Amino acid sequence: MLKTTIIGASGYTGAELALMVAKHPNLKLSGLYVSANSVDANKPVSELHKKLSGVVDMPVTPLTDLKAVAKESDVVFLATAHEVSHDLAPTLLEHGCTVFDLSGAYRVQKENFYPDYYGFEHSNPEWLDKAVYGLAEWNEAAISEAQLVAVPGCYPTASQLAIKPLLAAGLVETSQWPVINATSGVSGAGRKATMTNSFCEVSMQAYGVFTHRHQPEIASHLGCDVIFTPHLGNFKRGILATITMKLKADVTLQQVTDAFHNAYGDKPAVRLFDDQLPTILQVENTPFNDLGWKVQGEHVIVVSAIDNLLKGASSQAMQCLNLRYGYEPLTALI
Amino acid sequence: MLKTTIIGASGYTGAELALMVAKHPNLKLSGLYVSANSVDANKPVSELHKKLSGVVDMPVTPLTDLKAVAKESDVVFLATAHEVSHDLAPTLLEHGCTVFDLSGAYRVQKENFYPDYYGFEHSNPEWLDKAVYGLAEWNEAAISEAQLVAVPGCYPTASQLAIKPLLAAGLVETSQWPVINATSGVSGAGRKATMTNSFCEVSMQAYGVFTHRHQPEIASHLGCDVIFTPHLGNFKRGILATITMKLKADVTLQQVTDAFHNAYGDKPAVRLFDDQLPTILQVENTPFNDLGWKVQGEHVIVVSAIDNLLKGASSQAMQCLNLRYGYEPLTALI
Amino acid sequence: MLKTTIIGASGYTGAELALMVAKHPNLKLSGLYVSANSVDANKPVSELHKKLSGVVDMPVTPLTDLKAVAKESDVVFLATAHEVSHDLAPTLLEHGCTVFDLSGAYRVQKENFYPDYYGFEHSNPEWLDKAVYGLAEWNEAAISEAQLVAVPGCYPTASQLAIKPLLAAGLVETSQWPVINATSGVSGAGRKATMTNSFCEVSMQAYGVFTHRHQPEIASHLGCDVIFTPHLGNFKRGILATITMKLKADVTLQQVTDAFHNAYGDKPAVRLFDDQLPTILQVENTPFNDLGWKVQGEHVIVVSAIDNLLKGASSQAMQCLNLRYGYEPLTALI
Amino acid sequence: MLKTTIIGASGYTGAELALMVAKHPNLKLSGLYVSANSVDANKPVSELHKKLSGVVDMPVTPLTDLKAVAKESDVVFLATAHEVSHDLAPTLLEHGCTVFDLSGAYRVQKENFYPDYYGFEHSNPEWLDKAVYGLAEWNEAAISEAQLVAVPGCYPTASQLAIKPLLAAGLVETSQWPVINATSGVSGAGRKATMTNSFCEVSMQAYGVFTHRHQPEIASHLGCDVIFTPHLGNFKRGILATITMKLKADVTLQQVTDAFHNAYGDKPAVRLFDDQLPTILQVENTPFNDLGWKVQGEHVIVVSAIDNLLKGASSQAMQCLNLRYGYEPLTALI
Repeated sequence: MLKTTIIGASGYTGAELALMVAKHPNLKLSGLYVSANSVDANKPVSELHKKLSGVVDMPVTPLTDLKAVAKESDVVFLATAHEVSHDLAPTLLEHGCTVFDLSGAYRVQKENFYPDYYGFEHSNPEWLDKAVYGLAEWNEAAISEAQLVAVPGCYPTASQLAIKPLLAAGLVETSQWPVINATSGVSGAGRKATMTNSFCEVSMQAYGVFTHRHQPEIASHLGCDVIFTPHLGNFKRGILATITMKLKADVTLQQVTDAFHNAYGDKPAVRLFDDQLPTILQVENTPFNDLGWKVQGEHVIVVSAIDNLLKGASSQAMQCLNLRYGYEPLTALI
Repeated sequence: MLKTTIIGASGYTGAELALMVAKHPNLKLSGLYVSANSVDANKPVSELHKKLSGVVDMPVTPLTDLKAVAKESDVVFLATAHEVSHDLAPTLLEHGCTVFDLSGAYRVQKENFYPDYYGFEHSNPEWLDKAVYGLAEWNEAAISEAQLVAVPGCYPTASQLAIKPLLAAGLVETSQWPVINATSGVSGAGRKATMTNSFCEVSMQAYGVFTHRHQPEIASHLGCDVIFTPHLGNFKRGILATITMKLKADVTLQQVTDAFHNAYGDKPAVRLFDDQLPTILQVENTPFNDLGWKVQGEHVIVVSAIDNLLKGASSQAMQCLNLRYGYEPLTALI
Repeated sequence: MLKTTIIGASGYTGAELALMVAKHPNLKLSGLYVSANSVDANKPVSELHKKLSGVVDMPVTPLTDLKAVAKESDVVFLATAHEVSHDLAPTLLEHGCTVFDLSGAYRVQKENFYPDYYGFEHSNPEWLDKAVYGLAEWNEAAISEAQLVAVPGCYPTASQLAIKPLLAAGLVETSQWPVINATSGVSGAGRKATMTNSFCEVSMQAYGVFTHRHQPEIASHLGCDVIFTPHLGNFKRGILATITMKLKADVTLQQVTDAFHNAYGDKPAVRLFDDQLPTILQVENTPFNDLGWKVQGEHVIVVSAIDNLLKGASSQAMQCLNLRYGYEPLTALI
Repeated sequence: MLKTTIIGASGYTGAELALMVAKHPNLKLSGLYVSANSVDANKPVSELHKKLSGVVDMPVTPLTDLKAVAKESDVVFLATAHEVSHDLAPTLLEHGCTVFDLSGAYRVQKENFYPDYYGFEHSNPEWLDKAVYGLAEWNEAAISEAQLVAVPGCYPTASQLAIKPLLAAGLVETSQWPVINATSGVSGAGRKATMTNSFCEVSMQAYGVFTHRHQPEIASHLGCDVIFTPHLGNFKRGILATITMKLKADVTLQQVTDAFHNAYGDKPAVRLFDDQLPTILQVENTPFNDLGWKVQGEHVIVVSAIDNLLKGASSQAMQCLNLRYGYEPLTALI
């Protein structure tokens, strides 16, 4: 049994991870932590997330001695803020822990990315260099040997899984930038009280237009420019991404369909729908990325749906753990 | 044209009032105010409530000179916190303004009520004594001559309008306390950011059981004990109250029906549904209190529906103004 | 491995059962059926409920040869309409199947109940007599030996689990009828297209006042009269029941609290919250019935929350199966 | 006072129109009609839409004698199905009525459009030819003299008002087709019971990809190709359209901003937000089309928000009536 620690257990992704660890036959929950000054410190995690009552009641402990935590853990999930993950990861790694970081701190190896998009200089370039990007279906070999997995963001997961098969098959005319319109449930903003997340104020809207940090994450890992426009939707969880692309001349629907089946035929966390487009309902509370597509003339539209807290965060992290340790990919996830 | 000022214009009820004043043929909006240290100060009200853009764009001014405001106003709506209303009203009244207070500060003339339920001593007992309770359908004569109208709370409006006709007709066995179960939309908690109001956390639940300040407001004005259990519902606006009462021996459905028609036959803001029970949908964005009832054996169940921000607050305040100045009761409201 | 068949697999409870059977280590899904003329016949269940894609893809077969189904099944879940369950159960039972019926067809052994509340004469009085009421926490011994378990309705589960401990401890003054106000999510009306369930028309409202068939189910199994008022809420799943009762003279909060702990201290599907009241959020997608309570003077208010499709239907059925076959009560449920 | 008739008064847009006519100082409601075989026939409109109770209680009459209706009406709103409008309009027009048709029957003068997209041959080509497209801000002169106004669809309104200013100013590189992603509330599907509109099944999803009839309506009236992808959102009313376009070389943000202000500076139903992007919340229950935009490099993204039942249907129809008869554009609308 791998001793498994979750740092950042007070948020939505932390709670999902705690449930998964509790269900996993090969993992033992060894600790739940929050930052030392959190108002949630020392409360049972099931008081923060009452649905966990009777299932996971371990308290969330203020993180005061990172080295002690590192010594007691085989595996650490970081469900923490970007800068916190940036700071915590090296110590954990140096003590031999395998780290799955759900933040953005180790995802993009590109000059000026962190100052420009996250507002801080990256001071752990060696670990950034060693980090493996945890887009599970496209990086299995590297993940299976990684010590630090940078789990992709929610929008990047839904977007890349939709685009990569067509790029890989050389079907897309990338000089005309793919247009990604995506809508996320409110949980994407985390568990906190803000006017924007206030029940009476939530309303469908675009935000972060041309400036969202997931745009360069997507572009960097795809290797092509994209226009990415995120929206807030008035639902709790889920992301629906609609992606419009120009095809190269004479590309057929069959070629598009084949590209998806070639890419994901043996990948259990991606479900393909040849004749229909996925909805958020069908992926809510599941670890799946559902994909559908339509072709007309020189354009293809791909629709991609995930649960933002699961395939967009926690279940993809667990999927990476399963790949890393040789368990079935969806262990503890369905 | 009556010069009309709204203090507390940044909240939901203030915004509704601003819209009503703009529509009212006899009122002229003379000022919108917020407390001096509000983050919203000096912004156009249409920036706080974007739906007002192009309709009411007046800025919300920090309230620094109350006397000057009083001098420039014929009528003042107080859409402020209880203690703020408590403090502001006397100066306005002494300068001759007619005041419609939407807070709880002048509603209940009962020993120890304010310390027990609002956490402050009432220091304006004379004005509290002169205040007229603005339950429009039951207090027309007094409202038409009042200088200070204490507009009832949202739950008390929905509850009392449902119960008073039966009490007035002597049909209820009050030794068995009426049981009021009511559910309010999230806007009842005001325009603010809290975890409870956070989109992902809102969930139907009871709160303030046995301790809510609207219980003594209802009991005091009805003159009988009640059990009042408020709930939070996952919708934006509206209150649905379901009230279970024991009838006196041999009371018939016809007597119950007659009591409602006698009470409200000529009252345009109360709509009676003899054969069906009202829903929140039908009162949303309307100034109406819809009532339906069922009788079986010795029990009657009355269902009462209002828009909490309108008949439960702003439109009832405007209805009181209309009564006070002799306008049609629903002027500016439909 | 018990060969397990679900009849009525196109609805919401059927889909939940299919997922549970797939997760259960001791069950093997042997068949999914719908009535012979269903528009859903012969489709994969995952086409009706796309979230099941890749998890349970078995087609739903039109039920044409009940005896053949009986012979191939050890266990049958009936997630069918009341009259359908009424008709199907005897044949299955005579062939030795253990039957868990989620409908109302075998729940109440009371003269005229079926003609009055379900519109049909009961023609299987012997099986009605042998049926065990599957209120899991209160009927373990009988369930463990039953061949036909009549799984309680959603409202009756939430209501009875809240009231029975206090009745059992002799704390309630039942001459004053307990008042049950309960609100159910829209899934309680089943998977179908009606104007009432239409997205734009759903709105909080009372229905079935004094006439709902769950009132006599509750009263009959409690052995005391109650007033039961159901409401439709604008959420997908869950029931919140708020129950107001008169206590016998001098009953204390401690006695109330003790009654709940005595009743459920060792019952894993009931979670007790001494200091707070449960919400629907915390029970959604869980098999739990969460309970909280408050006492003031001679009154107690108990709040009870369940997922209507789980503890109010499918997970309670599975819990009964687990009791019947000696598995851990929450096997396949968390 | 213009005698005003609404045909198709049982739907959501018909109800909104009835409310507007009741508020309009120059209109008198002369009749509400539904098709002769409607289940709603002869019911008060306030029974179909209970929020109208006490405001508009006129019954909806089965339409049996169209000529009689024509003779009694100065103005007729057709809130009917496309084929019904197609059939009814000529008789009304020949009797001298001014007709505002909210359906698609007279919107597009293009070969094969009706067979291809609406499934019927157009048999009134002369009236189709005379019909004026009621995109109010762009067609004032023609509307002011029209006898038949074809009120645009909801998506076409939100899309065209966002795109036309930039096309008119020659700023867009149309060889790269504008990409319109739009999300509509469920009321866009009309007042009816379907599984897709069922509360528990509604979920964000794309539909009609490459095949929606609003695509050619938009393209035809813009005079340029577009990719239009509609989505269903889980909210009741409103449309949010996000439009991505390639700008011609060296076009600046200032030019884009100027184009919008030049187009709409004096148009009261369009509100411009230079620095922010509109939300659905701010247009719900209003007659406004709110617009915001962002420019980066060679791309512009415009976000457009309307209430689909108002600016996308009923209020735009009334706005056209106001233009036609010389009333203030927003009479009866705010």
